[in-house]
Amino acid sequence: MSAPGPQTAAASANPVLVEVTRGDMVESRHRAALAVVDAAGKVLLSAGDIERQVYPRSAIKQLQALALVESGAAEAFDCSEEEIALACASHNGEPRHVEVAGAWLDRMGLSAADLECGAHKPMGVAASEALLRAGESPTALHNNCSGKHAGYLTTALHLGAPLQVYIRIEHPVQQRILGILEMMSGCELRDAPRGIDGCGIPQIAIPLSHVALAFAQFANPVDQPEPRQAACERICAAMAAHPFLVAGSGRFCTRVMEATKGRVLVKTGAEGVFSIIVPEMGIGAALKVDDGTTRAAEVLAGRVLEKLNLIDDAARAELSDLLTQSVKNVVGKEVGQVRVAQDSPV
Amino acid sequence: MSAPGPQTAAASANPVLVEVTRGDMVESRHRAALAVVDAAGKVLLSAGDIERQVYPRSAIKQLQALALVESGAAEAFDCSEEEIALACASHNGEPRHVEVAGAWLDRMGLSAADLECGAHKPMGVAASEALLRAGESPTALHNNCSGKHAGYLTTALHLGAPLQVYIRIEHPVQQRILGILEMMSGCELRDAPRGIDGCGIPQIAIPLSHVALAFAQFANPVDQPEPRQAACERICAAMAAHPFLVAGSGRFCTRVMEATKGRVLVKTGAEGVFSIIVPEMGIGAALKVDDGTTRAAEVLAGRVLEKLNLIDDAARAELSDLLTQSVKNVVGKEVGQVRVAQDSPV
Repeated sequence: MSAPGPQTAAASANPVLVEVTRGDMVESRHRAALAVVDAAGKVLLSAGDIERQVYPRSAIKQLQALALVESGAAEAFDCSEEEIALACASHNGEPRHVEVAGAWLDRMGLSAADLECGAHKPMGVAASEALLRAGESPTALHNNCSGKHAGYLTTALHLGAPLQVYIRIEHPVQQRILGILEMMSGCELRDAPRGIDGCGIPQIAIPLSHVALAFAQFANPVDQPEPRQAACERICAAMAAHPFLVAGSGRFCTRVMEATKGRVLVKTGAEGVFSIIVPEMGIGAALKVDDGTTRAAEVLAGRVLEKLNLIDDAARAELSDLLTQSVKNVVGKEVGQVRVAQDSPV
Repeated sequence: MSAPGPQTAAASANPVLVEVTRGDMVESRHRAALAVVDAAGKVLLSAGDIERQVYPRSAIKQLQALALVESGAAEAFDCSEEEIALACASHNGEPRHVEVAGAWLDRMGLSAADLECGAHKPMGVAASEALLRAGESPTALHNNCSGKHAGYLTTALHLGAPLQVYIRIEHPVQQRILGILEMMSGCELRDAPRGIDGCGIPQIAIPLSHVALAFAQFANPVDQPEPRQAACERICAAMAAHPFLVAGSGRFCTRVMEATKGRVLVKTGAEGVFSIIVPEMGIGAALKVDDGTTRAAEVLAGRVLEKLNLIDDAARAELSDLLTQSVKNVVGKEVGQVRVAQDSPV
């Protein structure tokens, strides 16, 4: 009764790296690709088709924040370490995130009305519920990207560029970022497939191996011009010092950076992408779950850190519920797990 | 740089049937299997490995409701057509759903405290937000399965079986349902892989083709004993007459049953499953998205209905936003689509 799919689809299938169990059986399967590389582009660990182009989404906010720091904008506008961490964030919209974003804009004589990311309910469930209970509506400050957008405005002000339509690819800030992405990833990107991100900015497709390369460059920026070397270090230090601002209460990114004491910088992105920077090893990693599911991306990011021996016993104990995740039923009983696939090649 | 997965994983990969675009590129891909069969078990349409076992989850609530109707419990307790529709529901927890479930239990001298499904926030976003704004907490009546559980209690009362732990596989109600699943699917299921569903009841693994067969039997129950034939018809009529109660405002199941004027009965389940009953054609269908994603299951269910010529021009106009779904950014602009894959084999 079986009707196999077309040969081409089967031939290019990425391996199943994460599986979801329920009772006696694997219920769902997640295919993915991942690449760990050094700054010379040597692939240290991989699975799946790492030359396939992906939209790196919010997993490259650290790369986008380079424009803010290396242009001198952050210094000119006295950006704090907290603000730089928030520029790299997909935050929960918790009170502290909103406060840091608001104060930053305020200092520049701007406000939430200048952000072009739009308003959405806080990504953090508790924050979202608290807002509803208080009868309030979310503003653009609650948008998980509000720090990134505050960074764009800061850069635009510093460059003397228009403050409107800073999300368009033609805008000087986005052009700078495109140039940074090209240098860091080692790819020509002017003709790459392009789309619009959730917050309105351009998304540029990059082969997964080259996304990883960009983060290896970030970890070990010896081949980059000087203002960028210092900028990479400053951004890593900011994320390491303020993991809460990069995500929020209970979030994977925050908890992993806390448990690893900032030795690794991890960043999630929509549609199942993740980036990892390991400054002490001079390596970077990127992964993309084919179907775009966050639960699989998190478990896989954890596996990469395990493989790189970056999770010590204390961190493993702290992160056990993230490295293998529980599937719970409504009354809270564990009925299954999201785990690295038993026959995963990595 | 590519490292292909193990041969076995690639060989058994289901085809990509749904893809998610963003701008110029396909960003995410969903693999799936689907089977459309008649009551004799003849496969009329299929893709992927339809002999793989799946947990049919809430997509088989109609089959579970057979116990309520064919046992005589529904008649003995004067169940309305609305209550039978609600027994088949994964509802939104909107006021009307809660009201029907509450009144049903009340009539039997029972209450939300007798439901073993647990309480969760209403599945419907508007209902969930209204509850929060009102400062109220959800009860078990808001659980999307409350109607199904009310049906179990009704059946237990009628059978003189215990009202406690009716969710356990050993309970007479669950044993009846197991027998119904075996007869309808044509499978021995006593030793099948088993797990616990979100609402606490047993989930039994069934090959996808046999899930479809169970729904073909439902559509054309000529091989089933008589009380069941009438029960199948009564359940189909109830779902067709009350599509709102089966899901809720804006939901795929509700809108499809409304737009097709009850000619097809569709039912979603967690982890990317869907069932379809077409009484007028005497056929049934089932599908499972490998990665468990609802967006893909819905688009694929729509494709099956299109292939079966069950979507006329009026229905197509009404359902266009569900047959191909928009990916929108925060400010509401369409930036991509969830659509049937361009090279889908079906």
